Amino acid sequence: MALENRSIALLIAPRGTEEREFVEPRQALEQAGANVTVISLETGPAHTNNNDLDPGNSYAVDEIFANVSADRFDGLVIPGGSVGADKLRASRDAVQFVRAFFEAGKPVGAICHAPWLLVEAGVLKGRTITSFPSIRTDIENAGGNWVDEEVVVDKGLVTSRKPDDLPAFCAKLIEEFEEGRHSSQAARD
Amino acid sequence: MALENRSIALLIAPRGTEEREFVEPRQALEQAGANVTVISLETGPAHTNNNDLDPGNSYAVDEIFANVSADRFDGLVIPGGSVGADKLRASRDAVQFVRAFFEAGKPVGAICHAPWLLVEAGVLKGRTITSFPSIRTDIENAGGNWVDEEVVVDKGLVTSRKPDDLPAFCAKLIEEFEEGRHSSQAARD
Repeated sequence: MALENRSIALLIAPRGTEEREFVEPRQALEQAGANVTVISLETGPAHTNNNDLDPGNSYAVDEIFANVSADRFDGLVIPGGSVGADKLRASRDAVQFVRAFFEAGKPVGAICHAPWLLVEAGVLKGRTITSFPSIRTDIENAGGNWVDEEVVVDKGLVTSRKPDDLPAFCAKLIEEFEEGRHSSQAARD
Repeated sequence: MALENRSIALLIAPRGTEEREFVEPRQALEQAGANVTVISLETGPAHTNNNDLDPGNSYAVDEIFANVSADRFDGLVIPGGSVGADKLRASRDAVQFVRAFFEAGKPVGAICHAPWLLVEAGVLKGRTITSFPSIRTDIENAGGNWVDEEVVVDKGLVTSRKPDDLPAFCAKLIEEFEEGRHSSQAARD
């Protein structure tokens, strides 16, 4: 299988992660053979939402940021949800964890409001990405080049706009995680 | 009364505005004698939240942005809530409405995640403000000077961090709305 023996980190906030953006990448990655580890700010269960505000289901957390190193993983996926992404970006541990993937040139996927964590990690200068359109200005102010496309791949960084883009997002995630490290993915200041 | 004959615009999103940040400024302004007009993206009722995700009460909407001009008002208050502020900033009408207050040098209050609308309106260059801490980077990337204080007043722009700051926020709003226009509040590019 494409991702056999690959270990992927999948983030979830204690509350407010968009359910489909968590569930569908996990399913696609596991079906491709990856080992997926769910990482959050605190031990679970984590409570998801749909359309930002409607309560979704709850999910187990495998690890918390304080106890886990990015070294263990071959790639990272960050789901959106306004509140979930806002809570994750407020954690220094979460932001350092995300930044470590860029420093190591490992592939990263971020959908919807998740690029706020890339703003916070300071890794967007000169990168071309998409996101939920409401945060375009934050991405441009952070030095990113924002485009309105279903899925964008820029040297190992895979981004999409919203839940409807998930099939394209998941397909590109699998391609990039199979391909592995990109030296030009490394964080630039 | 301090704000007799003053007309104040108070924004609310169709969903996701933080309830206390809507209710408490309205009550304080009305008690000071102001006429408060509630403005949203669509006709009401608007559904608020508490702590970003817990359902709050619903409130009537007086006007929608498409039908109302900033000229009618002496001041503006923008409540937070991650989802509510994110929905408001995504509306061109809402952002132009906010920007018009800066262009006219009229006092503006913004609390919690509401400064995202100031980022979107492009009015933060050189301004000193506070906000919910998670969006500090977005404010700094937009050219603002971020400080961690209960309430900050910078030439007619009143900002606070969170619901706990509401007493200080409301007191300063009333002072600034009584004082009226600041020529140096005008939007700078």
